[in-house]
Amino acid sequence: MKVTIKDIAKATGLSPATVSLVLNNRPSRIAEATRARILSTAREMGYRPNSAAASLRTNRSYTLGLIIPDIQNDYYATYAKGMEDACAECGWNMIFCSTNNSPTRERQAIEALFTKNVDGIALVATPSKDDENDFIANRELILSMKTPLVQMDLTAYKEPINAVISDHQKGGYMATRHLIALGHRKIAFITGPSSLEGSQSRLSGCKKAFQDNNLPWDDGLVYTGNYSYASGLDGIDYLSDKDFTAVFAFNDLMACGVYCGLEKYGLAVPTDVSVIGYDDHFVSGILSVPLTTIRQPIYEMGKESTRILIHAAENPDAPPVVSKFDLKLIVRKSTRKIR
Amino acid sequence: MKVTIKDIAKATGLSPATVSLVLNNRPSRIAEATRARILSTAREMGYRPNSAAASLRTNRSYTLGLIIPDIQNDYYATYAKGMEDACAECGWNMIFCSTNNSPTRERQAIEALFTKNVDGIALVATPSKDDENDFIANRELILSMKTPLVQMDLTAYKEPINAVISDHQKGGYMATRHLIALGHRKIAFITGPSSLEGSQSRLSGCKKAFQDNNLPWDDGLVYTGNYSYASGLDGIDYLSDKDFTAVFAFNDLMACGVYCGLEKYGLAVPTDVSVIGYDDHFVSGILSVPLTTIRQPIYEMGKESTRILIHAAENPDAPPVVSKFDLKLIVRKSTRKIR
Repeated sequence: MKVTIKDIAKATGLSPATVSLVLNNRPSRIAEATRARILSTAREMGYRPNSAAASLRTNRSYTLGLIIPDIQNDYYATYAKGMEDACAECGWNMIFCSTNNSPTRERQAIEALFTKNVDGIALVATPSKDDENDFIANRELILSMKTPLVQMDLTAYKEPINAVISDHQKGGYMATRHLIALGHRKIAFITGPSSLEGSQSRLSGCKKAFQDNNLPWDDGLVYTGNYSYASGLDGIDYLSDKDFTAVFAFNDLMACGVYCGLEKYGLAVPTDVSVIGYDDHFVSGILSVPLTTIRQPIYEMGKESTRILIHAAENPDAPPVVSKFDLKLIVRKSTRKIR
Repeated sequence: MKVTIKDIAKATGLSPATVSLVLNNRPSRIAEATRARILSTAREMGYRPNSAAASLRTNRSYTLGLIIPDIQNDYYATYAKGMEDACAECGWNMIFCSTNNSPTRERQAIEALFTKNVDGIALVATPSKDDENDFIANRELILSMKTPLVQMDLTAYKEPINAVISDHQKGGYMATRHLIALGHRKIAFITGPSSLEGSQSRLSGCKKAFQDNNLPWDDGLVYTGNYSYASGLDGIDYLSDKDFTAVFAFNDLMACGVYCGLEKYGLAVPTDVSVIGYDDHFVSGILSVPLTTIRQPIYEMGKESTRILIHAAENPDAPPVVSKFDLKLIVRKSTRKIR
């Protein structure tokens, strides 16, 4: 027979309300000792929580979900840390899912969070790779959910949604302008997946900087990466027979791969090739040559995402919010005036 | 009125069994189009899944939970990736919680995963910091749960449990022996939190290497860090007025901090000070001076953790398994013969 909250209240001599607060993980001022006693009694008696039923009653699970494409990318990890710190401040919990850059796994993650009754989902888009249909289907799946959603770096939905965004067009522009100001004309670009808005925006900023300086654009110097260390290496392999004096990698992880790739071809940073990254990953300052990069306030974007989701969960009729964040050029030693 | 699986079956013209398989996220061969139709109908009708009830019937949620102390540490991220890849191979889902090195948050994470009805939990211990009681209470909380558990790097429970472990005593011994063989006698150690078995074991291996070489041990050259980049920096501040020719940092993140700290004091690696790390973090090979380190097969340990948990979920009476993994010394350029 199913063990109920009433059974546990009876066994502990506490009120069902107190037991319910603890077992449903609701913020409360119940003493730690009492809390521990309730939890251990519940487990001894084999209580299995019915979180869906609890959620139906309270309409709240006090849990946010986050879906990221790659748990090994420090950029997403920092975003996650911002979200979890803001959750902790409010007594909320957080669960993560990673898609490992697979749209199929992204769908599974959305479904998994749905079945876990989270009160809100933050989504960092997984690139579509080969199957554009998966990408679109997942967007539609999310739109059809009634759960509050905040999207990082993606605003192009069919209808307005909550979003935290950096102005990546400006970021792409700043990085390219920096290289042009140093005299570089033959600049290679290692982008993110073309299906991702953040990468498209950076690239359009790069092109705008070329236009504003009346420089000819060369599509042959653009390599489409996927934000991984390995694709920075692959980019240099692709560029190895081309003529370039600078590389703009659309994130720092790929810039690390670029360092390694250039070394393989006997090219020194910044003597032979200037390199600029994007994100300001924590290792960027301690690399063999400290990396010039565009800093995103990604931790703050995580905190803001939590605030948006909790507000949306508590105010179901609140209109969508789009929070924009500023970028900053951090000049270190990997870029220099062309010889 | 609550929308049921039968209502959705009626609306879609499909069998309740098919609808149930999809809505309970069970592995199945149902066509993608059908699957999408069921999910969108469920959402349109306002269906709220009752995962606890489903779990009571099937005794399976096909979801594993993982609790890590710090989502920004690549070591844990790689472990998580191994777990999730093994989950994906079996059609299982995975959710993560991070404790941000707080035992209080660790308890909340254990409770959160319990309320999400995961079929197994992998736990990477969060250090106890000031409150030893929290640490012990969380261990007891887990022991009292009936959910399968696998513990990374912690075997000292009151009763046998599933565990994946590296032989950290051997790792500590190997790293120290390497430095001794290069002629170093004044070796400083930046450890992990003393409450963590993995750190204790490394340290006992270091002491054993000193004993085996008849060298005097100096507790004054031991600094207790917390596996963060910042605590590597702090360690060098502590050591700055001491006499040492080599540093063994108990993970690579702290070794990165050591690099930065040594630079602050005008000391060069390896000319003035040899540095050895532990883990083989992906940046270790591309640092200003490529880092000598002890490699752990952490990705494989993640895969094995998933295999252990799924086996335990499917065989509730299976005895606990302890899987041991080998370590390897990776010699790069941060260690050299003493002048």
